[in-house]
Amino acid sequence: MEKRVGDLGEFGLLDRLFTLVRRAEIPVGLGDDAAVLTVSPGRWLLVTTDTLVEEVHFRRAWASAWQVGYKALAVNLSDIAAMGGTPTYALISLAVPGSLSLSWVEDLYRGLEACAAQWGVRIVGGDTVAAASICLTVVLLGECEAGRVRTRGDGRAGDLLLVTGELGAAGAGLEELSAPAAACPPAARARVVARHLLPTPRLAEGRLLAAHPAVGAVIDLSDGLAQGVREIARASAVGAEIWSESLPLALATKEVAAAHGQDPLAWALYGGEDYELLFSVRPSAVAAVREELDRACGTPVRVIGCLLPPEAGLLVERAGERVPLARGGYDHFLQPGKNYG
Amino acid sequence: MEKRVGDLGEFGLLDRLFTLVRRAEIPVGLGDDAAVLTVSPGRWLLVTTDTLVEEVHFRRAWASAWQVGYKALAVNLSDIAAMGGTPTYALISLAVPGSLSLSWVEDLYRGLEACAAQWGVRIVGGDTVAAASICLTVVLLGECEAGRVRTRGDGRAGDLLLVTGELGAAGAGLEELSAPAAACPPAARARVVARHLLPTPRLAEGRLLAAHPAVGAVIDLSDGLAQGVREIARASAVGAEIWSESLPLALATKEVAAAHGQDPLAWALYGGEDYELLFSVRPSAVAAVREELDRACGTPVRVIGCLLPPEAGLLVERAGERVPLARGGYDHFLQPGKNYG
Repeated sequence: MEKRVGDLGEFGLLDRLFTLVRRAEIPVGLGDDAAVLTVSPGRWLLVTTDTLVEEVHFRRAWASAWQVGYKALAVNLSDIAAMGGTPTYALISLAVPGSLSLSWVEDLYRGLEACAAQWGVRIVGGDTVAAASICLTVVLLGECEAGRVRTRGDGRAGDLLLVTGELGAAGAGLEELSAPAAACPPAARARVVARHLLPTPRLAEGRLLAAHPAVGAVIDLSDGLAQGVREIARASAVGAEIWSESLPLALATKEVAAAHGQDPLAWALYGGEDYELLFSVRPSAVAAVREELDRACGTPVRVIGCLLPPEAGLLVERAGERVPLARGGYDHFLQPGKNYG
Repeated sequence: MEKRVGDLGEFGLLDRLFTLVRRAEIPVGLGDDAAVLTVSPGRWLLVTTDTLVEEVHFRRAWASAWQVGYKALAVNLSDIAAMGGTPTYALISLAVPGSLSLSWVEDLYRGLEACAAQWGVRIVGGDTVAAASICLTVVLLGECEAGRVRTRGDGRAGDLLLVTGELGAAGAGLEELSAPAAACPPAARARVVARHLLPTPRLAEGRLLAAHPAVGAVIDLSDGLAQGVREIARASAVGAEIWSESLPLALATKEVAAAHGQDPLAWALYGGEDYELLFSVRPSAVAAVREELDRACGTPVRVIGCLLPPEAGLLVERAGERVPLARGGYDHFLQPGKNYG
């Protein structure tokens, strides 16, 4: 039977497509958070692009145009943050139906511009085309000192895995938007919905990490912690273990989970869109890195696991039991006796 | 009544949206073929992006995946050509339904890569996301010597207007694809369809023009000659006159037009997608510029009009009559007695 795009998933598809293009002589290979290019002596150029599609990445019923615009740029900023770069310029490619209200598109641009102004980015171009549904592509450029990037392939077995901020709140916010629970405390709801709609790119944190000699792999968590760990393990050719009791869950996330009768750890592992940085550090330097991030950015950092030799595979520890990391999906995680492949 | 996006059209919408972003200190303002950025001493970085949407910009019934991919990159190359730049790197952002066959997407990438290889571009990244219909965004980077770009705003009253190659063939090809005429000679059909599906970016020509001191405004013709002239006139604050009898129509275009009972000049003026370069030259240098393009690239160049003082407006001359240039649309052009506003 003919293979479909959906049979491979996003990551398998990209890997397959990238085999069809010639290898370029660039500092970092295809498939990291941003492309790294040498255009200037001493500086590297970073380029990243992400597309948001209506009904896939956002719904007009759940997010204002301003919020969609803000988030579209913020998620691209997160890719530059993961590389340790400083964002500079953005271009916006916008496909919209002709019947869409002008004020909606203007608010979208105001959200884009608000995010750009907040993080020091200039919008310098783009285009608009007609389409049946809204499809918004942001192109974001950034820069960094030559040689000073961390990729998802820089992890070493024995490194500890750390994560900035908190996990699971964006997943909780999505749950509250899609199926609001009457029992959900309003303050908790507001907090997790804001985390879902308006992510904070960890730009200063990413630059500090890229400059620190004890830091190995860095990735931003757009698709959940499990996927981030999987990507680091694959690109670094190592195994990994996640200590689920150590995952940083905000009180609000736990309250929303309780109101929904759900497990907040599942949001942290598989919910996605937290846009925190996941990174690996040599054990001897963990205290210094944590202190530096706290002092410079006020950002809490939690140790949540470690990298292992490749033969260890990918594991998650919970309640004293160690099970293979599920390929994604909430239900699998809730049945720790099962082998998830 | 609330305004809709469709009330403004592509150009009006972009202008309006660009008023919502802060002005950046960049060498060329918003809204030209590519953004021009200073990232390196002595060199400028060019960035352009274009989105192709299924059923708007291509149909799977009319074009193979390979052709869609080739054209998606080629139209971005044309934007770099208009700026006089050399293309370097591309990123591909691809939104596709999960039900799409894998081989279709692979062929799309093969077409992208074939175009990239032909014009010296490396594909260095991108992403794939799920969507209800296919939406393909190409981000293309290029470079040029600092100070050496021509924009659509560099025209001067008194310049002559010239165009590379031929006009109207892409429009003829689209017509043959959408409503094939039994009377259409097969060789003519093949030629115009190829012009529609596989445009040739005028990269070498664009670089020569940017380096020539007598050349003023340059733009690539993605939306028809009329729109190109309109854009140069607007950005350069001049008027213009098109000499319709001088427009370069290939024999094949005329044959296809005859088979369809249509006017080939309408395709040249309003058909779009020819991706030729329209540019202005000081009259005294026209012969030298034509000879240089012919010698270096083998590309014929035709004088098709001139730039005028702004108060002259936009005119088209045909059969000894001078009428205002229609805002687009074939029917208007066929009624030269009417005032088109």
